[in-house]
Amino acid sequence: MRTLLKNGTVINVFTGEKEQSQVLLEDGRILGVGDYQEADADVTEDLSGKYLCPGFIDGHIHIESTMLLPAEFARAALPHGTTAVVADPHEIANVCGSAGLSFMLEASEGLPLEVYLMIPSCVPATEFDETGACLEAEDIAPFYEHPRVLGLGEVMSYHAVVNGDAGLQKKIDDARRRGLTVNGHAPLLTGRELDRYIAAGIGDDHECSLAEEAKERIRKGQWVMIRQGTAARNLEGLLPLFDEPFFHRCLLVTDDKHPADLLEGGHIDDIIRQAAARGKDPVTGIRMATLQAAEYFGLKRVGAIAPGYQADLLVLDDLETVAVRDVYKKGKKVVSAGKLLPFPNPVLNPKWESAVCGSFHMDRLSSKDFRLELEGIHCCRVIGLVEGQLLTEEVPREIDFDSQNGMDPENDLVKIAVIERHSNTGHIGLGFIQGTGIRQGAAAASVSHDSHNLIVMGADEEDMAFAANRICELGGGMAVVRDKKVLAEMPLPYAGLMTGASAGEAASQNELVRESLGGLGVPEGKELFMTMAFASLPVIPHIKLTTRGLVDVDRQRLVPLLAE
Amino acid sequence: MRTLLKNGTVINVFTGEKEQSQVLLEDGRILGVGDYQEADADVTEDLSGKYLCPGFIDGHIHIESTMLLPAEFARAALPHGTTAVVADPHEIANVCGSAGLSFMLEASEGLPLEVYLMIPSCVPATEFDETGACLEAEDIAPFYEHPRVLGLGEVMSYHAVVNGDAGLQKKIDDARRRGLTVNGHAPLLTGRELDRYIAAGIGDDHECSLAEEAKERIRKGQWVMIRQGTAARNLEGLLPLFDEPFFHRCLLVTDDKHPADLLEGGHIDDIIRQAAARGKDPVTGIRMATLQAAEYFGLKRVGAIAPGYQADLLVLDDLETVAVRDVYKKGKKVVSAGKLLPFPNPVLNPKWESAVCGSFHMDRLSSKDFRLELEGIHCCRVIGLVEGQLLTEEVPREIDFDSQNGMDPENDLVKIAVIERHSNTGHIGLGFIQGTGIRQGAAAASVSHDSHNLIVMGADEEDMAFAANRICELGGGMAVVRDKKVLAEMPLPYAGLMTGASAGEAASQNELVRESLGGLGVPEGKELFMTMAFASLPVIPHIKLTTRGLVDVDRQRLVPLLAE
Repeated sequence: MRTLLKNGTVINVFTGEKEQSQVLLEDGRILGVGDYQEADADVTEDLSGKYLCPGFIDGHIHIESTMLLPAEFARAALPHGTTAVVADPHEIANVCGSAGLSFMLEASEGLPLEVYLMIPSCVPATEFDETGACLEAEDIAPFYEHPRVLGLGEVMSYHAVVNGDAGLQKKIDDARRRGLTVNGHAPLLTGRELDRYIAAGIGDDHECSLAEEAKERIRKGQWVMIRQGTAARNLEGLLPLFDEPFFHRCLLVTDDKHPADLLEGGHIDDIIRQAAARGKDPVTGIRMATLQAAEYFGLKRVGAIAPGYQADLLVLDDLETVAVRDVYKKGKKVVSAGKLLPFPNPVLNPKWESAVCGSFHMDRLSSKDFRLELEGIHCCRVIGLVEGQLLTEEVPREIDFDSQNGMDPENDLVKIAVIERHSNTGHIGLGFIQGTGIRQGAAAASVSHDSHNLIVMGADEEDMAFAANRICELGGGMAVVRDKKVLAEMPLPYAGLMTGASAGEAASQNELVRESLGGLGVPEGKELFMTMAFASLPVIPHIKLTTRGLVDVDRQRLVPLLAE
Repeated sequence: MRTLLKNGTVINVFTGEKEQSQVLLEDGRILGVGDYQEADADVTEDLSGKYLCPGFIDGHIHIESTMLLPAEFARAALPHGTTAVVADPHEIANVCGSAGLSFMLEASEGLPLEVYLMIPSCVPATEFDETGACLEAEDIAPFYEHPRVLGLGEVMSYHAVVNGDAGLQKKIDDARRRGLTVNGHAPLLTGRELDRYIAAGIGDDHECSLAEEAKERIRKGQWVMIRQGTAARNLEGLLPLFDEPFFHRCLLVTDDKHPADLLEGGHIDDIIRQAAARGKDPVTGIRMATLQAAEYFGLKRVGAIAPGYQADLLVLDDLETVAVRDVYKKGKKVVSAGKLLPFPNPVLNPKWESAVCGSFHMDRLSSKDFRLELEGIHCCRVIGLVEGQLLTEEVPREIDFDSQNGMDPENDLVKIAVIERHSNTGHIGLGFIQGTGIRQGAAAASVSHDSHNLIVMGADEEDMAFAANRICELGGGMAVVRDKKVLAEMPLPYAGLMTGASAGEAASQNELVRESLGGLGVPEGKELFMTMAFASLPVIPHIKLTTRGLVDVDRQRLVPLLAE
């Protein structure tokens, strides 16, 4: 069947021009652009007064961060005009390894939003991490045969690259030898170290926060991904990249995106809209988010409105506000007048689904597991939260273990525990944290970068054990517990990271869980689950807790609780 | 060994910026660009006052047209800053088929000028051609495994593509499925037909002569190769493509380049220079001829001065005149202060060399073979040359066969013969041609597009036979004969297309052959060998001669000599 889209103003992403033109589609592809008539088609849509542009491509996202399965993510993102994403399943890979990758490929098969994958390069992310799996070069290679796998995911261990780590270099070389893309992650790296990192074969970066930092990378051949997600928001600082000559080597990405933000704020459309509101040409944003993303990742005949190109198209009511009206995926309308048209879920292989949904391997815990065998007063290394930031400070604090086993909730000092939950090793890292606002009860979560062990914070060991056990029963999730009662919970049974629910349900559940923190005394606006998600990641300064205990991030070594 | 190139002004092809910077090389690659010092290197070169840019890439050339073997071509092109070419061995493939392709790959192995190949798509070019070989999809596919093969050569049969020819589409699809490039050739195609041609999978065109023609292609996703060769010179008409936004989707190519023109005029450097003389930024030309060419053809880490990139570099004394001083190929200096440094010839496999050098298969001819068995006066279809053009006119002319078997040199009417020389079929096409200027003797050549059969023109059947036999003895070449004596000759023993001599010798020999045409009465300035090279190509209007006889090009059919 031939479809004619007539009288729309077509955004030409090759030249940046806008021209009223007719577009003829058939069999999922664009047949022609130009002087076509109704007689050429079986169906005609009149787009007078509207714009036609290619579907948006998010060049770097962790779908797990949306807490949604790929199909539900697609349902949330499609109405915002996203027709493809390049996803890095780094989180599920840390939990489930290759099975997690196979699951993500299957769970995204045949969706009207194309999910391309980059295979995670750094599993585990550091030597301190006790992950559910380890991906070596030989585990990664077979995935490169899959047509939706585009390369190697963000190479975060940039010190290892710069210092010539052979294992990591092999992973990079394997991907490059196949002509595939290698994503970077190296915030603030500059000069000679950046040269070494790029020369090792890293093609891009999404961690730039400053325009000059980004320009250095472009001048040195990298592509810069302008990231505007839920947590990290770099658009403001990188606005100068929307100008000549830099925009030609930039993409738009979200990296991490929470469900409510995706539903309400938008996706790539929102980045273009925000840039337009700051005076940047929306056509420039569209070029970055379409053809440039496709060409950077080596996707052929995707990302433009031209003969032979895949018919992934958006009808916009307005260009400045990027108001997405209709979305065509491979020539089929999937969003009509802003409304998503239904599509079936992919059929999941029970083998991968059971591996992913049975990711918890740990024994039940009791309050004893959260007690420290110490008496009297000791000077301890306490994790000090810094308002509004993911980095922490090491605070030396005199702790009286004879009172509440050292906790002092009245003075904002509670316990934190990180429990190994992949291989039932029984490893538990225990410590103290200040600045959470917790006065009573406990909160627990299985979203805890990058190993996604079980993290618990609380003012009461009984509640900590209860919350931890509850998460284990759920097979993953978030829970807020007081007096051995669950105040709110959000099950995340898929690898302890994703829900089977829709984006709307996920957003509501997530909202309830966050609100229920008030019942523990946590002030509104403190994003405690975000704090928990990063309190165990030993690459963010200055002190973090792992299953093996406290890590001095700056010195990259384990340190004892007692500072004496 | 580490080399520091210091204080040069580096052309940044990612941004178009010029900046004085230090460049550090090692093992054929660029280690870094920026703040490096002499202490970082074993050797330092001071480039104060000079420019540093990536080596030039010719995106489309037929090396056979230079009449040089790849090594000699490299010796002529390197001093002009060419460090890579994408060659389409269409000519040798028409003569020697797969053996010719293998020969070209071997004859270009390990040269300090990288020769990438596109595998010819249209062998034979038309149904009228009697070629030495026929390349089907299954003959082409094995060559895609070679690391220097980048795709499918120019798809000239655009009518076949537009009309859905299955065999040709299979060749295109085979290349695309492998992620390879497919070159186009479709002069003046526009609108719906162009859409169909592009949608079939054709990525570029080098036949544009008008800026609007080129812009339509860019808007529709093709890359435009701005061609400025010896015969076809499109720079003037395409100068507007040097401006935003079009230059981002353009390359610079020569297509056909004769040895004297290559030596004296230059190569890609000359295109940039000519554009600069017409007010276009040489940096724009450099960007088209380096990074853009590399990226279009999917060459990774080639075409820029950036960390990890192959160290193919030029030192320019001056930017506007593109005065190439030094050339580095893979970090090694190959041209120093304008002088080529010696390098060895590739070792040739005797199997391919003997196939290529034994390409003539025909019996000796006598004057009888050039006589028409006709008596009296007949109206004949005469090929009428048009001054300065490759197209011809069909001229009906009363011919008296009782006088000189129809020839009338006094009135500029001589004979033309095209002799099948690949398979000894004995096929000879015989006809009349006017406008050559030949008054006596004969000229013969084995360079005769695209089948490269033996073509002879002359005012005397004895001399025609003598000249034809002489070319056969030489195994190919050009010869000018009068009274059964060779006035001048140029042997082209490699497939009847290329000499083993250097560019300088080839240019001198070619000059002598062309000058000797004066001995036949041909006025100076008439490029008779160029005329002969295209007099047998049944795709250029309006009438051509093949081994099977006259072809009415417009109607694409054989027509008899007698117009009665």
